[in-house]
Amino acid sequence: MQRIVDFESVERFDHQTDVLVCGFGGAGASAALEARRAGSAVTVLERFSGGGGSTALSACEMYLGGSGGTRLQRELGFEDSSENFYNYLMACFGEYADPARVRAFVDGAAEHFDWAEALGVRYKRGFFPGRDVVALTGDSLQFSGNERAWPFTEHATPVPRAHLPADAGHDGGRVFMGVLLKRVEESGADIRHDARATALIRDRGGRIRGAVARIDNRDVHILAAQGVVLATGGFIMNEEMTRRHIPEYAAFCTRHGNPGDTGDGILLGLAAGGHAIHMGQAFVGVAHYPPAKLTCGIFVNEQGQRFVNEDVYLSRMGHYAAAQTNHRVFLFVDNEHFSRPDYHETTRILAVGETVAEVEQEAGLPAGSLQQTVAFYNRHAANGEDPLFRKASNWLVPLVAAPFALVDWSLDTLKPTCFTLGGLDTLPTGEVLTPDRELIPGLYAAGRTAAGIPRTASGYASGMSVADATFFGRQAGRQAAAQPRA
Amino acid sequence: MQRIVDFESVERFDHQTDVLVCGFGGAGASAALEARRAGSAVTVLERFSGGGGSTALSACEMYLGGSGGTRLQRELGFEDSSENFYNYLMACFGEYADPARVRAFVDGAAEHFDWAEALGVRYKRGFFPGRDVVALTGDSLQFSGNERAWPFTEHATPVPRAHLPADAGHDGGRVFMGVLLKRVEESGADIRHDARATALIRDRGGRIRGAVARIDNRDVHILAAQGVVLATGGFIMNEEMTRRHIPEYAAFCTRHGNPGDTGDGILLGLAAGGHAIHMGQAFVGVAHYPPAKLTCGIFVNEQGQRFVNEDVYLSRMGHYAAAQTNHRVFLFVDNEHFSRPDYHETTRILAVGETVAEVEQEAGLPAGSLQQTVAFYNRHAANGEDPLFRKASNWLVPLVAAPFALVDWSLDTLKPTCFTLGGLDTLPTGEVLTPDRELIPGLYAAGRTAAGIPRTASGYASGMSVADATFFGRQAGRQAAAQPRA
Repeated sequence: MQRIVDFESVERFDHQTDVLVCGFGGAGASAALEARRAGSAVTVLERFSGGGGSTALSACEMYLGGSGGTRLQRELGFEDSSENFYNYLMACFGEYADPARVRAFVDGAAEHFDWAEALGVRYKRGFFPGRDVVALTGDSLQFSGNERAWPFTEHATPVPRAHLPADAGHDGGRVFMGVLLKRVEESGADIRHDARATALIRDRGGRIRGAVARIDNRDVHILAAQGVVLATGGFIMNEEMTRRHIPEYAAFCTRHGNPGDTGDGILLGLAAGGHAIHMGQAFVGVAHYPPAKLTCGIFVNEQGQRFVNEDVYLSRMGHYAAAQTNHRVFLFVDNEHFSRPDYHETTRILAVGETVAEVEQEAGLPAGSLQQTVAFYNRHAANGEDPLFRKASNWLVPLVAAPFALVDWSLDTLKPTCFTLGGLDTLPTGEVLTPDRELIPGLYAAGRTAAGIPRTASGYASGMSVADATFFGRQAGRQAAAQPRA
Repeated sequence: MQRIVDFESVERFDHQTDVLVCGFGGAGASAALEARRAGSAVTVLERFSGGGGSTALSACEMYLGGSGGTRLQRELGFEDSSENFYNYLMACFGEYADPARVRAFVDGAAEHFDWAEALGVRYKRGFFPGRDVVALTGDSLQFSGNERAWPFTEHATPVPRAHLPADAGHDGGRVFMGVLLKRVEESGADIRHDARATALIRDRGGRIRGAVARIDNRDVHILAAQGVVLATGGFIMNEEMTRRHIPEYAAFCTRHGNPGDTGDGILLGLAAGGHAIHMGQAFVGVAHYPPAKLTCGIFVNEQGQRFVNEDVYLSRMGHYAAAQTNHRVFLFVDNEHFSRPDYHETTRILAVGETVAEVEQEAGLPAGSLQQTVAFYNRHAANGEDPLFRKASNWLVPLVAAPFALVDWSLDTLKPTCFTLGGLDTLPTGEVLTPDRELIPGLYAAGRTAAGIPRTASGYASGMSVADATFFGRQAGRQAAAQPRA
């Protein structure tokens, strides 16, 4: 597949623009709007008949804060310093984090909320205090990650940062993208649907000068005087790439994204000399809540041992579950805290008994293993303590109400949702870097085509991808629009 | 940094050859020799004043078997079918394995031993039955991985496969490379020392036609009529690349390799359109033996819980240790099994006591955690069983001889040796692939410049890297030498 074309070999350009944006999801639309607002001519190539990308499929939580708090945080009485936000994100991604990118994000995130609201997206001045993946109350602010869970509580003050479109629940992405796409259309951007970018056009000097798009079964050559923004999403729908890069997850996961998440932008960037990083990292969604009371249960592995505090975010649970022997994990609960989980129909009660010993035997766990784990947990929970993993005290209740159950949450049967976190290495401006960290002139990337703020399942929180995609999409659009025209 | 040069822009070639080999370690030397033996003119570029690479620094175990057994295995009474060898390797690397590469390797590995012996490397007909990283008895065959450990015993019959140069101990690499480099010199290959490949030369048709080398502070252009083999090692010595690709390991590791392991070949391959895979994977050597009796101890984490069977190979231990909270792990032993480890001077006795309770308290482990772990372990060990992790029965002894000790093996202080396992995606022939798995004509890679047989720390065994580097180095040299001259 020819993914790079020599500029000098192009006989005729079919179309000319300033900024060419590949992909019309959250990142691409944000880039397009920002470039238009900066005065550039913009063309958008969207592979499908309608825009929206994977952002439209999401609840469109945006993980924002800092600068004293977003307007929404402040109006709801929450303060959030950029330092606190920074510390939280650095604790989430540790050595994987890109400090420059995190810094740019925490400094600009509060303004980004104003931008989103100014688009016309409605945010309700209501805080949802519960433990749910997405607030279904219509409220627009909630906790969505590991803010209140150990060890993050040691690094940052818990603040709710998930900003949701009002009254939309899981439908927030459709609502948000509906508004954003409309703004892009109104901006005068030239939007081409059913148009897939297949190659970048590079001149002898190494600058990206445009792209080839497949439109109406024809190769259309588009000249982009200021630059090309790659925003075609991640690669979770590319069977071959997931087998190469996330082979372990690929074997058990339910692929989460839109059908266009086939890695096109990453592949184009690589062909142009870009560098893909953290390609082995992915989100793994093991939603062990809601209902919240399941958090009072304990997760154990094949050894009958606990392995994480159960009050973590669902992809931190997924990260640790994937690391257990045979990806097999089980939720132990007593009758008082038993419930079916809202998000996983494939969980299955493995054993029930009047005593822990009966459950242990029926489930085939090593004799005595579950019994001592539960006894240890109960003994300390009675004192409001979890000396092993420091689950927060509000979830610590001795599990003593018979009958008891062990529910199978093994990943091979659960088939948790996954999407990829690896992508092109970029500066916070969206400029694509080579493996030597040199710039590729004229090339930008954002959204899951780039390695963004969220870089590991263990530190992920709901709202990080959409916030990253739209925030850094805007940076890329602005940066491209600031270039002299070639 | 310009890593690719247009063939058409080169005014004059300073030198011409058939097969150009970059790197004169195990992989490069094997490629060079094989290409010479096939009748090609060969030039080798070695960055330093002497060859040997990281292979020379190793004990030069080669992990070989299959085909009924290598000559050495058979003469020592061991049978090893290719199927058994295949099953073992597939169990080691699971979804990370490349079945085609594993198949090619197990089918050719026995012959590869004959090749090594025919070079003039001496292998002693002696089997070392003990548990050590490298036999110091002079014997040439030993177990070196997880063959006798669960869960591998469920997938393949244990057979010793580490083939060591006779009477060399840890010095095997120097011995082996001494012989191999001599054979390459005798073969008539043109060997250029202090010559670092800095760019590949590619023609308009996309074929790699040679390379630029830095020699005597001058850019020398070398035409390679049949192809270029990249064999410059891994990237463990490249600070920037390790920070990007193995950030977690980079933070605590001791970098293991020669100073030339800076990823040159990978970077050249990427610039030519190659695809790097499994870049986040690395060997992590937590040598918890010898002495073997330490294997009778138990490793626990901050939760006072075991996390792996202790009879595993040292990098499987490293893999699991790295996954524990804060990378902190501890060895619990009784007086009968206490000893200082041979390979880690940085271990430190954290606590000593006449009872497990005293040790637990002194070490600051959660009250009751270590006590119940040890009691559980001892109860089952007395019956020769380890229901949690199935450590082999010969290592199962109740730990009851006071005083007891807890020794700190935490990775941040241990600083285990690491080297990288990710590299260019290649066919078993060494042909370098693009992200679309298309061939890059004229380009080959082997050794740690390519993603090879060993792909994860959890499945690694001593001898896999050298066996892979030399075996697939030969394939690459042979494949290049079979090409028509451009």
